[in-house]
Amino acid sequence: MYRTILPFLLSSFLILPSPALAEHTLPSAIKVDSKVAVLCNKAMKDNVAWKIVESVSTEVGPRPDGSEAEARARTWAVAKMKELGFQNVHVEKYNISAWQRGTEKAEVVSPYQQPLVLTALEPSAATPADGITLPVAYFQTFNDLQLAEDGSLKGKIAFVSNQMRPTQDGSSYGSQGMSRFVGPNLAAKKGASAIVIKSIGTDHSRAPHTGHTKFEPGVIPIPAAALSVVDAENLERICKRDDKVMLHLTLTPKQIGERESGNVVGEFPGTDGSAGTILVGGHLDSWDLGTGAIDDGAGMAITATAAKLAHEVGPHRRTIRVVWFGDEETGGLGGDAYAKQHSAEMHALASESDFGADSIFKFNVNFPESAKDVTNRIAAALMPLGVVRGTDVAGDGTDVKPMLALGVPAIDLNQDGTRYFDWHHTAEDTLDRVDIEQLRQNVAVWSTVLFITANAKEEFGKVKPKE
Amino acid sequence: MYRTILPFLLSSFLILPSPALAEHTLPSAIKVDSKVAVLCNKAMKDNVAWKIVESVSTEVGPRPDGSEAEARARTWAVAKMKELGFQNVHVEKYNISAWQRGTEKAEVVSPYQQPLVLTALEPSAATPADGITLPVAYFQTFNDLQLAEDGSLKGKIAFVSNQMRPTQDGSSYGSQGMSRFVGPNLAAKKGASAIVIKSIGTDHSRAPHTGHTKFEPGVIPIPAAALSVVDAENLERICKRDDKVMLHLTLTPKQIGERESGNVVGEFPGTDGSAGTILVGGHLDSWDLGTGAIDDGAGMAITATAAKLAHEVGPHRRTIRVVWFGDEETGGLGGDAYAKQHSAEMHALASESDFGADSIFKFNVNFPESAKDVTNRIAAALMPLGVVRGTDVAGDGTDVKPMLALGVPAIDLNQDGTRYFDWHHTAEDTLDRVDIEQLRQNVAVWSTVLFITANAKEEFGKVKPKE
Repeated sequence: MYRTILPFLLSSFLILPSPALAEHTLPSAIKVDSKVAVLCNKAMKDNVAWKIVESVSTEVGPRPDGSEAEARARTWAVAKMKELGFQNVHVEKYNISAWQRGTEKAEVVSPYQQPLVLTALEPSAATPADGITLPVAYFQTFNDLQLAEDGSLKGKIAFVSNQMRPTQDGSSYGSQGMSRFVGPNLAAKKGASAIVIKSIGTDHSRAPHTGHTKFEPGVIPIPAAALSVVDAENLERICKRDDKVMLHLTLTPKQIGERESGNVVGEFPGTDGSAGTILVGGHLDSWDLGTGAIDDGAGMAITATAAKLAHEVGPHRRTIRVVWFGDEETGGLGGDAYAKQHSAEMHALASESDFGADSIFKFNVNFPESAKDVTNRIAAALMPLGVVRGTDVAGDGTDVKPMLALGVPAIDLNQDGTRYFDWHHTAEDTLDRVDIEQLRQNVAVWSTVLFITANAKEEFGKVKPKE
Repeated sequence: MYRTILPFLLSSFLILPSPALAEHTLPSAIKVDSKVAVLCNKAMKDNVAWKIVESVSTEVGPRPDGSEAEARARTWAVAKMKELGFQNVHVEKYNISAWQRGTEKAEVVSPYQQPLVLTALEPSAATPADGITLPVAYFQTFNDLQLAEDGSLKGKIAFVSNQMRPTQDGSSYGSQGMSRFVGPNLAAKKGASAIVIKSIGTDHSRAPHTGHTKFEPGVIPIPAAALSVVDAENLERICKRDDKVMLHLTLTPKQIGERESGNVVGEFPGTDGSAGTILVGGHLDSWDLGTGAIDDGAGMAITATAAKLAHEVGPHRRTIRVVWFGDEETGGLGGDAYAKQHSAEMHALASESDFGADSIFKFNVNFPESAKDVTNRIAAALMPLGVVRGTDVAGDGTDVKPMLALGVPAIDLNQDGTRYFDWHHTAEDTLDRVDIEQLRQNVAVWSTVLFITANAKEEFGKVKPKE
């Protein structure tokens, strides 16, 4: 055994790897600024980000768009930014058309009888106060709904399911999410009286996932709601036993008219006013069901803490501006309002954190050719934090999209989204979903990126936006 | 390395274990009836138990005591038992005093404002329809509530927390559960206007745990509810920041008077009418929030399927009777009604399955001396299924307790309860919590026990009940 095992060990662990390595081009060695290690060290012990999420969860809670709670959240945000040492802290207000949840109830009334848990999608229309009782037209996927003939849903409640699987990059949300994004609009156009969808989620719980849905101009909104994944599975089993399922549905949400929303802005001014501002942030609003800890208390906390740490390391060339956007969830009016007010100012970079509180595993950029070396420096600096350099063009994010559309350079710091859609837009979006160690890794990555880009001698001119 | 490793390997794996083993008394070898292996083989491929849980979850759903849904559940149960081949299938009815959930809402109104998720405990009293707004008196544990002075809770809402940890045998439920079992009664006696407790649960979710609470005769029930664990943690953080917390609480449940409940009974008659009946079962009723899959669809399914399999192996000496008890959750009147009607009949054994759907890891007995060998045969037969012989006296179970109190022998087949209190009495008690492989292990264990006890030549006389 001795004579046969040792050569095997040597060959597999010492000899074989060399030819394999040779197939890869070795990257050029890059010296990382020693201040990055100092920053990361501080970030990995940081409690500030955690305290921000804890504070907004405990002292504010749910803060839906246009609500009195969102106004309280702005007051909280201004005080918090000042406490963190931000300068020029102020609110930029704008109006939105607000919607408010009402009663939401559903029961299968035949062939069996049992209640189902669901929640209205915004901006769902209302049923009469005592509900509607109609046959269900079941579609296994959004594609099946698309195939339904025009008018075939008249007098029916469309029930559109999906088969969303967890994906690290969240890509399943885009495809399976069509049932929510445009399913209600399509069902309305095909004559449906109402629609219920299986929640766009990867959990197996009774917590339904709410969210925004878009009705085209000219399409009259219908009552639209998401069943919890478990309730949808139950309804699917019932639909497979009997094709004459009757549902009683009561939804009484309402449009409550023009209300105030606002972006809360703070910054750490740079030494070179002509070098452009770096815009980062998360959103302050949340859905009404949870306390908005992962969506997007975490994003606010990560970006603000990272800015504070990067600033504390020493003077920086560019201004770092943190914006806690108001309306993100019901149409992204916060980002629109920011772009309207600030489009004339030079921005060197724009990026947001709005994908939960899990660790960052990859980054992508959309930088001008002049800043190519900055990307290499970021890649080298993020290696110890386990962040891979991706090959996509950066440009994600509802809040910064209007600025990116103007050609502002972008960096996407992709968080692990494997579990994000277990809780996204549900009552389960609470402080319990936030892990302080993962939060710290986010702060380390963000502060590193802010430090490098805020101090880069390279210029950040306009780029072609991601399509 | 070669010369040093081999002796080490030999000494640790081949030589050392022998003296260690010699310290234990080797059990006598017991020949297990070959039919047990046949039974277990069938059970480990069984789909019948799963289909029963699936059927009650899909075709009935929640079936609270005294409700019209419980009546539909009885109709379902009679049809299901007949379909499974049971004989003498019938319903034994009785009346209960029924309670019905109403509106349930709570908000912290100062020092911060945010809604909290809770659910009423049965038989909670109601607040006025527009709720009450009162200061909170916070107690970290039930013990702290006990220490509060008489009258000190006047004009207050008591908030009693707990620190329940997962335990495999569920023992944390007994101690931490005091907050629910008797907390409301105690708070009422100390003058509280209402009580909210932290749910008796081991999860970290927004799904509150309902359940029965007991008010002593002469104590006027107060409004009583359980906050979800997450909401309770939030309220605790708020109470620790400020000792003047105000809560707005609305609970409108009501007593709806005398309603019908009933036990559904079926059996496989034995060949020897004088050998006594073996009584097993689970309960048919469920809380209104979930679909009663683990509490106790699983127990119904496991015991009925095990009885069917044990019966199919061949003729058995004793009658195996399966009872799906009606009211278990709101006071255990189903078990009382059974005992009232059947106490004069000879019962050789009584046991129930009512601790979820996870695997069985241990068993305990309370058998007469005459049946000592039966215990040994059971222990040997359950070894391949990974079931340990415990040293406690058996006698658990609300439904069979009234029969056990009369001296009927008992066997407890303890399921792994590590995760049971994540979902117990919540909306999350659904089919998704049931694992078919674990269910099969339960069926294998139960059918083995039924086969051995139903065929045992030994007599099962009266025993001293567990205290």
